[in-house]
Amino acid sequence: MKKISDLSAKEVMITGGFWKVLFDKVKSQVIPYQWKVLNDDIPGIPPSYCMSNFRVAAGKKEGEFGGCVFQDSDVGKWLEAVGYVLMQSSDPGLEELADSAIDDIVAAQQSDGYLNTYYIINGLDKRFTNLKDNHELYCLGHLLEGAVAYYQATGKDRLLNALIRYVDLVARLIGPEEGKKHGYPGHEEIELALMKLYSITKDEKHLKLARFFIDERGRAPFYFREETGKYGNKDHWKDSPFQYNYYQAGEPVREQQYAMGHAVRAMYLYSGMTDVAVKTGDSTLVDACKRLWNDVINRQMYITGAVGSSAYGESFTFDYDLPNDTIYAETCASIGLCFFAKRMMKMECNAQYGDILEKCLFNGVISGMSYDGTSFFYVNPLEVVPEASEKDYLRHHIQVTRQKWFGCACCPPNIARLLASVSNYAYSKSEDRILVHLFMESRVKTELKSGRIGFDIETNYPWDNVVFIKVNEAPSSPMQIAIRIPGWCENFELRINGNKVRYGLENGYAMIERVFQQEDKIELDLDMPVTMAEANPRVREDVGKIAVMRGPVVYCLEEVDNGKDLHRIYVERDTTFRCKYDKNFLGGAVLLESDGKKLSQTEWEPDKLYRKATKPEFDSIRLKWIPYYLWSNREPGEMVVWVKSE
Amino acid sequence: MKKISDLSAKEVMITGGFWKVLFDKVKSQVIPYQWKVLNDDIPGIPPSYCMSNFRVAAGKKEGEFGGCVFQDSDVGKWLEAVGYVLMQSSDPGLEELADSAIDDIVAAQQSDGYLNTYYIINGLDKRFTNLKDNHELYCLGHLLEGAVAYYQATGKDRLLNALIRYVDLVARLIGPEEGKKHGYPGHEEIELALMKLYSITKDEKHLKLARFFIDERGRAPFYFREETGKYGNKDHWKDSPFQYNYYQAGEPVREQQYAMGHAVRAMYLYSGMTDVAVKTGDSTLVDACKRLWNDVINRQMYITGAVGSSAYGESFTFDYDLPNDTIYAETCASIGLCFFAKRMMKMECNAQYGDILEKCLFNGVISGMSYDGTSFFYVNPLEVVPEASEKDYLRHHIQVTRQKWFGCACCPPNIARLLASVSNYAYSKSEDRILVHLFMESRVKTELKSGRIGFDIETNYPWDNVVFIKVNEAPSSPMQIAIRIPGWCENFELRINGNKVRYGLENGYAMIERVFQQEDKIELDLDMPVTMAEANPRVREDVGKIAVMRGPVVYCLEEVDNGKDLHRIYVERDTTFRCKYDKNFLGGAVLLESDGKKLSQTEWEPDKLYRKATKPEFDSIRLKWIPYYLWSNREPGEMVVWVKSE
Repeated sequence: MKKISDLSAKEVMITGGFWKVLFDKVKSQVIPYQWKVLNDDIPGIPPSYCMSNFRVAAGKKEGEFGGCVFQDSDVGKWLEAVGYVLMQSSDPGLEELADSAIDDIVAAQQSDGYLNTYYIINGLDKRFTNLKDNHELYCLGHLLEGAVAYYQATGKDRLLNALIRYVDLVARLIGPEEGKKHGYPGHEEIELALMKLYSITKDEKHLKLARFFIDERGRAPFYFREETGKYGNKDHWKDSPFQYNYYQAGEPVREQQYAMGHAVRAMYLYSGMTDVAVKTGDSTLVDACKRLWNDVINRQMYITGAVGSSAYGESFTFDYDLPNDTIYAETCASIGLCFFAKRMMKMECNAQYGDILEKCLFNGVISGMSYDGTSFFYVNPLEVVPEASEKDYLRHHIQVTRQKWFGCACCPPNIARLLASVSNYAYSKSEDRILVHLFMESRVKTELKSGRIGFDIETNYPWDNVVFIKVNEAPSSPMQIAIRIPGWCENFELRINGNKVRYGLENGYAMIERVFQQEDKIELDLDMPVTMAEANPRVREDVGKIAVMRGPVVYCLEEVDNGKDLHRIYVERDTTFRCKYDKNFLGGAVLLESDGKKLSQTEWEPDKLYRKATKPEFDSIRLKWIPYYLWSNREPGEMVVWVKSE
Repeated sequence: MKKISDLSAKEVMITGGFWKVLFDKVKSQVIPYQWKVLNDDIPGIPPSYCMSNFRVAAGKKEGEFGGCVFQDSDVGKWLEAVGYVLMQSSDPGLEELADSAIDDIVAAQQSDGYLNTYYIINGLDKRFTNLKDNHELYCLGHLLEGAVAYYQATGKDRLLNALIRYVDLVARLIGPEEGKKHGYPGHEEIELALMKLYSITKDEKHLKLARFFIDERGRAPFYFREETGKYGNKDHWKDSPFQYNYYQAGEPVREQQYAMGHAVRAMYLYSGMTDVAVKTGDSTLVDACKRLWNDVINRQMYITGAVGSSAYGESFTFDYDLPNDTIYAETCASIGLCFFAKRMMKMECNAQYGDILEKCLFNGVISGMSYDGTSFFYVNPLEVVPEASEKDYLRHHIQVTRQKWFGCACCPPNIARLLASVSNYAYSKSEDRILVHLFMESRVKTELKSGRIGFDIETNYPWDNVVFIKVNEAPSSPMQIAIRIPGWCENFELRINGNKVRYGLENGYAMIERVFQQEDKIELDLDMPVTMAEANPRVREDVGKIAVMRGPVVYCLEEVDNGKDLHRIYVERDTTFRCKYDKNFLGGAVLLESDGKKLSQTEWEPDKLYRKATKPEFDSIRLKWIPYYLWSNREPGEMVVWVKSE
């Protein structure tokens, strides 16, 4: 197999279209807002304490530790987003802010390299005594990701070097050798971060530590049990069906058959596993990654790319269990699935990874942020009844409107870093092949085996169904452009300079091989009708229902357009949809209209609960469908994705 | 309005049929088993400590308090059931056991009358400092109910007199007067118990105390807030949407518009309110009872007579919110609804109360006990998927098989006392009218204004649709027999001695007025086809579904008869049912068969989750329906009441 590798972030510039709007929102709104949050500068929301903790730990100010044990991670995510933004274009003011943050972070580092404000402030004697729940390695992972991105953007290695010292300390204390703790993190994250570090340092120690965390996880004797006994830590899931499966640590990762436990943790673990599997070619790990990928996407994923069926433990439950109204579907879990998909794309050339990535990006990820970029969902339900959220605690976690910020602020900075780096997800290369996974207005310049290739992509995808690839420069020998044909697309046409082109199809990619010329213009024309999807009949909640899609975009019905009691609405399977691009609708979107019918309430005696069954009577109605990710940007109310259809 | 009153329990003997089987099961199995439980004599289940606590409190043995704060109530319920059994026929051995229990209870009484083992053992200084959560008045209520029943059965007043002293103490410490606590119980129960006591003592003090508890409840300033502050009690629902509504104490009872909070507590409160309203004629209280009744049965009740939509707080949620798979539906709550209905039947002659009573009895109540009378459900779901109960904590409370006994053992003794007294629910009288609410093989003898009436009822109801009433003696002047015509029955015939009879219809009762003769034989012939019910379209979970009923009995599908994936089954609205009485099926029951269809799984690629919607394909299947209350008596598996129907 030819090695598939990422383009560096600086090789892809977003130039316009759908993702540029979101990138700009992150750059202009989210990152400055987040900086204020990290510095407790936003009145009316609970303080973050994140930067304050570093300053207290560094002795720069008096105070106590504030926030969650994983508060350090927030600035890691923020720096990572800043790094991605700076890769796209310089911004001296922003760089200055980041440097000042790095000053504060590095100032807190201890002489032996240790750098975690919770333990520095509360007592270093307890450090590394609760890997299971206290997120030290998780925080290190996020700081590492931030440091790597910032180094790649700016060449500045101050934080990177500091963290390498911290990693050295960790490797001295934790590892397979006798005398070290045979531990691993309760919340995975450091595994994939170490692999990013390794990609820069090429230091085998960094790869080795990542592998150790993955290999040791879930092996008997269980480190978490040992640690809990030794240090008297709380055993949160002892009386739960989870046990250590909450942490994906109930059995060795290579033996895990199903995605289990906390969904975000699972996604981060699988991403790290895939990094290691791709790097080492370890076939048992490759098998585990594929098996877990298949379980997630073929048996435990919502149609929006959301994962995590239950609020209990924010977790996976079991195959085909996908309730729409008690769902958890954390934004971070969909983001994690993007990480996983991106890494699987390096394991093999197969369009399914791009399909899932695209599904997450256009639906379950960006539903987490409001149109104006200032409020966020943790939980992304597929069915919402405001009264249930208010009055039944089992559905209390289903928020009807996005919130400004959260006590546990994982999702907003996670969206920010993903959207700031979204161009990194669009392309890969492999010898003399460039792979186009996503259709994104962008300018690409990279080096293939035989020389430089440069092209522009122009498209108003996903609203428009045509994608242009204009070649700016190309090697003088043959090369391949491999274009992912989305799984939802049944017919497409490929032309070069107006003429049909010969292409091969390989695992869902159309492969055009030729000597490309400057000014060559490839045109991809994807049939993009509105379609209805149905779920596997094993999915209890979706039997007798359909979901409406156009291209990768899942649609929904909202009360503001369609009235109350969305559960009474039916749609015929052969109904026709009218599509219209509305440039004024929340930044512009294709909206749909169709006929529908609503189970009549008029014949019922007021108040009566049950009666002898009759032939159902329906009222004809017009339905207005909007992209799912745009829900809850107008009047709060009911929302539904899966609509009844006989 | 003519006063409607109960027949005394000794005036109605169950002689055979459906309820006699259950009565005998309670007498021969449940009561002896419970006695052993109360005395910690059953190996393999957690000890109850109930009788042990009384002996420790009395100084008869060394030890500590064990079990829940409301453990005393268990023997109250047991004694009550024993009383009802003894009213039907003497049993010297059982009476001896009960006397020994009463010895232990009374021996624990303090010199001032106080009698609660939790505080006697743990410290009397804390008594009456947590009316909100520590169940002192609740326990007193259950002991009172037991004492009253035992007194009515045997004439023995030892426990009754002891408890009257305890009530006197309570009335000295709690009440409207200055210097007394203006408190009321967190778990209602004593209100209805005091009304039972009052029916014997005619002591206005007892009525007054019941009224005080009802009138003071939910009034500002809130006693619970005061008490919590004063004694530093835990405020369990402070951060919950419930607040004091969990206890039905968020506003005065006369202002409550919706059934709210813990469902069992609500039912007990409404029952006590109705007792007081009937006794006093207080019109604002009458209105509140009717309003809350209407909310419960017309907007918050399952078709089985179950109430309590959410496991969170075992509570009501909101109107038309009736999820079938995350339901709570505690057995005790359906029992409480029977109490409420029985009392509403004294408020006015209206067949709706008997309809609901019958619905609860044949469905949501007796589903709580296994066929062999040795295991019990707390929670009575209408839809069960075993894997969900096992793997998703939000559905973890949905047990798939009944349990032997419970740590908090409220339901089993509650079923026992209800089934032991079920004959008390069948009849009322009013001047020269006897009202027949339920159809139960029994012998009735009572006194009307104009003289004695005696009759036998013979029927194999609900399996058989004919009810015979054979008059044994009657007054020589005209009297009325008022027979409830069930709401589910569209056509019926009434004959006397083979001839059609003239009758009036009054609020759902057929009124036959004449001078009855010895040997008169009334025959009621109720059309009892199998019918399908549909729910109000406001009930989200039941749209596009039907429930199958025959007479008052709700049917269900079980996996053992119909295979896995019951959610894929559809039934046509015009399908015909074959009924067959199977005497060998769990004690005998009418079973149903029908055609049905099952959404096909065969066309699906294995593992695929979503695809473009197709026209649904179905496989024809035969469906076997069993009475809902008999579910989970064979192989554990899936079960569903509401079945898809287009």
